[in-house]
Amino acid sequence: MRYFEDIIERDREKIGQYTLTQDEIIAYSRQWDPHESHIDPVAARHSVFQGLTAAGIHLIAITVRLMVTCPAQMKILAGLGWDEVRFLAPGRPGDTLTLVRECIEKRPSESKPDRGIVINRLELRNQDGVLLVSYMDTILMPRRPDL
Amino acid sequence: MRYFEDIIERDREKIGQYTLTQDEIIAYSRQWDPHESHIDPVAARHSVFQGLTAAGIHLIAITVRLMVTCPAQMKILAGLGWDEVRFLAPGRPGDTLTLVRECIEKRPSESKPDRGIVINRLELRNQDGVLLVSYMDTILMPRRPDL
Repeated sequence: MRYFEDIIERDREKIGQYTLTQDEIIAYSRQWDPHESHIDPVAARHSVFQGLTAAGIHLIAITVRLMVTCPAQMKILAGLGWDEVRFLAPGRPGDTLTLVRECIEKRPSESKPDRGIVINRLELRNQDGVLLVSYMDTILMPRRPDL
Repeated sequence: MRYFEDIIERDREKIGQYTLTQDEIIAYSRQWDPHESHIDPVAARHSVFQGLTAAGIHLIAITVRLMVTCPAQMKILAGLGWDEVRFLAPGRPGDTLTLVRECIEKRPSESKPDRGIVINRLELRNQDGVLLVSYMDTILMPRRPDL
């Protein structure tokens, strides 16, 4: 597990991969974003994207899952917020998505000496390298305890 | 269904309500944010929030669901992005959440006369009026077709 001290500004790393299936796109969106462009392959042909696409919230959920389950997990006290979340291109059935993290900024907490704030830029791309989603993820991380 | 023309700047409306259950908090987070603070009621007692809390991504998914399923639905061509997403207080089992929408800005597309851009501020509060999550949601809406 990585603490605040283990995160290095400008470090860029591949976090993980995830394959989108049509069944999962439809199942997720039926519950959380039941717009026809995400749940009805026939109607979706007439959308601006001309085919079934994953919900934006589904793509963000995939980035969260990849962050929380990656091998070199970062210890998180709390998620503080997301900024500049951009849905730049659609995720489609069969896409293999790759998440990359880059630390943009880190600073110790001003009020609590046992924690610090880290801002990561997250980028989710498909198998052709097309950027689908990007955002800034601000988290509160514990500092490494004294031994 | 509401078109671009039906959205009025500064209009503020209640979109809907949603009750969080412990079972749903755990089931959602097992799949998408399997951090112990969201899936393990015993371990969560030792988190900064001292009890099981809903994942941030789960709260945002609830806001998306409420927007897409509300009675006076807004027609959406595409979601463009989210800004200033803030996780201000935890959602807990049994909370009844209320979503309020306020249109902050709307403008016609400069390149395509059949659509416009709307920025909504969304606020999710619990039964005590505590603001849990807020963000700006930018969407692309179709203009009402000529009859």
